[in-house]
Formats: sequence, C-alpha cells, structure tokens
Amino acid sequence: MQRQDIRIGWVGLGVMGLPMARHLGTAGYPLFVHTRTRAKAEPILAEGATWCATPQEIAQSSDVLFSMVGMPSENEEVFFGSAGVFAAKRCPSILVDMSTSDPSFARRLDAAAQTRGAHAIDAPVSGGDVGARNATLSIMIGGDAAACARAQPLFEKLGTRIVRQGGSGAGQMTKLVNQVCVAMNTLGMCEALMLAKRAQLDPQAVLDCIGPGAAASWSLANLAPRVLRGDLAPGFFIEHLAKDLRLADAAAGELGLDLAMLKRARACYEDLLNAGHGRKGTQAAVLLHR
Amino acid sequence: MQRQDIRIGWVGLGVMGLPMARHLGTAGYPLFVHTRTRAKAEPILAEGATWCATPQEIAQSSDVLFSMVGMPSENEEVFFGSAGVFAAKRCPSILVDMSTSDPSFARRLDAAAQTRGAHAIDAPVSGGDVGARNATLSIMIGGDAAACARAQPLFEKLGTRIVRQGGSGAGQMTKLVNQVCVAMNTLGMCEALMLAKRAQLDPQAVLDCIGPGAAASWSLANLAPRVLRGDLAPGFFIEHLAKDLRLADAAAGELGLDLAMLKRARACYEDLLNAGHGRKGTQAAVLLHR
Repeated sequence: MQRQDIRIGWVGLGVMGLPMARHLGTAGYPLFVHTRTRAKAEPILAEGATWCATPQEIAQSSDVLFSMVGMPSENEEVFFGSAGVFAAKRCPSILVDMSTSDPSFARRLDAAAQTRGAHAIDAPVSGGDVGARNATLSIMIGGDAAACARAQPLFEKLGTRIVRQGGSGAGQMTKLVNQVCVAMNTLGMCEALMLAKRAQLDPQAVLDCIGPGAAASWSLANLAPRVLRGDLAPGFFIEHLAKDLRLADAAAGELGLDLAMLKRARACYEDLLNAGHGRKGTQAAVLLHR
Repeated sequence: MQRQDIRIGWVGLGVMGLPMARHLGTAGYPLFVHTRTRAKAEPILAEGATWCATPQEIAQSSDVLFSMVGMPSENEEVFFGSAGVFAAKRCPSILVDMSTSDPSFARRLDAAAQTRGAHAIDAPVSGGDVGARNATLSIMIGGDAAACARAQPLFEKLGTRIVRQGGSGAGQMTKLVNQVCVAMNTLGMCEALMLAKRAQLDPQAVLDCIGPGAAASWSLANLAPRVLRGDLAPGFFIEHLAKDLRLADAAAGELGLDLAMLKRARACYEDLLNAGHGRKGTQAAVLLHR
C-alpha cells in the first residue's frame, strides 16, 4: 500500500502527541486529528491535517488510529466514551494506544477491538519531548504479532528503538518498568543538586564532573541543566509521572512485590501534585524539602 | 621534572586502587606501594613497583602520596595511625586522598599537611571498576589551587574528567552529590528489573528498549546486564555505598536538608549490609524485597 492509502487517525496533540503526529504527516500519511483544545491542533492543520470533532469521527475516517493523551480518564473517553472510537459504525483495523495506561486497560482495549475484527496495540514511549521532536523515542509494544508488524513502518517514523515485548499489556508493563527508572533517576538528580547548592558548590562544575561518570543518567544530562537555568517547564508533567508511579506501584502490589524506593518516589510526586505542581516538569522535584 | 624524578606513593590496591596505580607505573613514575593484603600487590610488584611495609615507610620514600582505601577507619590509620603518613620524619609535598571520605576529614587532613609544609588534596573518583581500568574516571577535586595544578598531570593518567570543585573538602562533597545519583539510579534499576521479572517480561527485551531512552543511566547500562547474568560480584561494594550514603545523609543533615529519597536509599543499603551482603556489588540490591 502507498502511504497516501493509509489514513492515520490521531487523538491527543499535546507536548508529545503533536510532534509525533507531525512526523507521520511529513512522511506523507493523510492525517485525521482531534485534541481537546483545538488551538493546539493549528500547527498540524496548517500542514494539511483534517480536523475531526470527536474520536468517533476519526474512527469513521481512519485505518490506523493512535491515541496519545495524558490521563487514563481521557483514554477511557477516547475509546469507550459516547463520542469515542467504539461508538463509530466502523472500527479502524488497528488501534494504537501510545499513552501510558494500566496493562489491564490495554487488554480490555484489545478485547473490545477484537469483537470488531480489529486489534489494539499498546505502544507507550520513552524519550520525553526531546525524543518526540527528534523521532528518537523508544517504543514499548504489546499486542498481536501480525498487527504489530503491520504498524511497524509507522512506529519507525516516531522512534529509533522499537521492541515488541509480548502480547497485549506487555508494552504498558514495560513502560511502568521504565518509569521506575525515570522517577528514581530524576529524584536522585534533584536531591543531588539540592545538596550541591546547599553545600555552596558550583552546580555547573559539579555537573561537568559527575555527568559522564557512574552518576550518569538521561535525567542528569537533560533535566539538571534546566534546573540550573531555573526552568521548571514541562518536558514531562509531574501529574503524568505521579499517575505512572501509581500504576507501577499498583502493578507491583498485584504481583506481590513491595518496592520501597518506588513507594517513596510515588509519595514524593504525590506531594508535589498536592502542592499544586502537577503542571510543572518532573525536574520541579527540586521544590520538595525547601 | 622528569617522570622518573617524581616518586609516587600509593596506599590501597583494591578493585579501584590497583588498576589506578598501574596506570601511573605504566606512565613511567617510580611507585612505592602498600596495601593491607600483600598478595593483592603482586601484579604491580611484578611490574617493578617497590613494596613498603607501612604508609609511614611510603611517606619516607615518595613525593606525591595517594590513598585509595575503602573505609574511613582505614584512611584514619593510613594518615594518622602509629605507622601512618604523619608518623614519618618527612612528609611528601602532596597527599592525595582518592578514597571517598567525609568533607571534614579532607579539611583535617589538609590542615595536618600544612603544618608540615605540604598540601592535602581530596580527589575522590566516579566511574567504577570499568573507569579505573580504562582510565576514564571522573575526578572531583578539592584543595589548594597550586597544589592541584601540580598534581594535574598525575590525575590525567587516571581519568578523563578532572574538575577542581573548590577548596579542601569540595571534592568530597561533590563525590557525595555523585553518590546520591549513583544510589538512586542503581536502586531504580534494581526495582525496575524486579518488576519486569515478576511480570514475566523478557528482561533483556525490556533493557533493549528502555536502555537508550529517558530511563538511561550508567547503572542501567553497566549493572543491569550483570544482574541478568546473575552476577552480583562487586564492581563497587555495597559496604562502600552504604558508607557513602551515611556520609551524604549526615552532610545533608548538617546543612539542614531533609532528603527523603536519600534517606530511603540509605536504609535500603543498610538493610543489605545487615543481611550480610556488604561484600557484594551494589547491583545486589535486587536481593531486597524477595
């Protein structure tokens, strides 16, 4: 099939979704888009994408439908809501949830898709806003092997590390595993910088020295410089990481695992959320323990 | 001065100290060495280093004396003990403590050195056993600027990122900042792998996907593969990281900082120590929460 013949539906044009959808548009796929706040769609509409009023309307017009929204409640609405995907008369043959969701949601979504002769793939990503813009995301995939293979050329427009982890839900579980690392690396970086500043070290000289050694992390390389500039704007929202840590802690608990650091990290990000920092970037954990 | 004219003293030939001292020997500096267990010195003695029975004896014979030992009590003995450096009739003009010690120990050491017309430099490192072997360590330096400049050619044989952080103690404080990141990245990696295994994911496929993304860390790249091979041997001993986290937590407390993740990480490594895992590598935190 030619790219022009594969109509892409895309729901969710936030800090991650917008650059991702644009990569598919740039690659030549016809795009049908929806997001809660229409103004956020303007850049991609200007590039030729077609606006749809609802996810239901996108389902009518697309062959592969992607969702990249922030919260589980939104995803529930996108797929199962009264104007959602499953309210449409037809179903795209592949539904791809790139949001971070509960593994059990992925399985429920796939089951619903299969009753309509379609497949749902869970394909959450890692790499942040930088990865979304540069199409260097890691994509963690769960779902039917043949459906995943069909979607592969699309994933290749979005990321550089695309690994199928198993059946439905395995992508989401892998993402939760990823988020455990992300949260710990980020909180470690934040507490480290707080200690450096309080000890009156030069934080930039500290970063220059520790950045490439055993302390190295994506968070230290990408988020610590933002902290030093006083930039707490979101690459990744605290409210989203707090949600991911809730999901990860719940998943661990269901598996009979008591992960002490994960629980503490979850509490840190819940504290930040409760203090009103949910729409700041995850590096705003430097605001804890002031 | 020619390298042959600068006699190097080296105390401590463990998993870090031995490869580091060898780099200086290979570079052509005459070496005078001591370590608690003489058998550990055999490789470097075979390469031409001279054995000394005590740190005191090394102090008699060297111009620049390095210490790279594991625990604060050993360092106390190396410098201030009855057969220690300061028991010698002469003092090397530069003492370099590359162990991770309390910042206040660094200041005490420098004060003692200065009464003998010498300088002490605190120069702890990061980069683990791999960095020691490949001479790619990061070196965090505190001390008199002129003395640090004189030692710089020696540091350049050991590491690739050498940054003076300030006066005496600033190197040690920077190292503690580093260890906050190291501990958090390592514990995050361990809990992440425990979750992946318990969820019956393929841990290697998970690593392939999350390794290069926002979850990336030195720990994930270097220690997670060891965990998957069942290799809990020390690159870096749990007893040393536990000690470093005690120092970091104490330093934070003295500065009026209450760092929640650091406290929890310290408790995790104390638990491992108390369970008898002190001589395993830091990746043995996967043995927690079994």
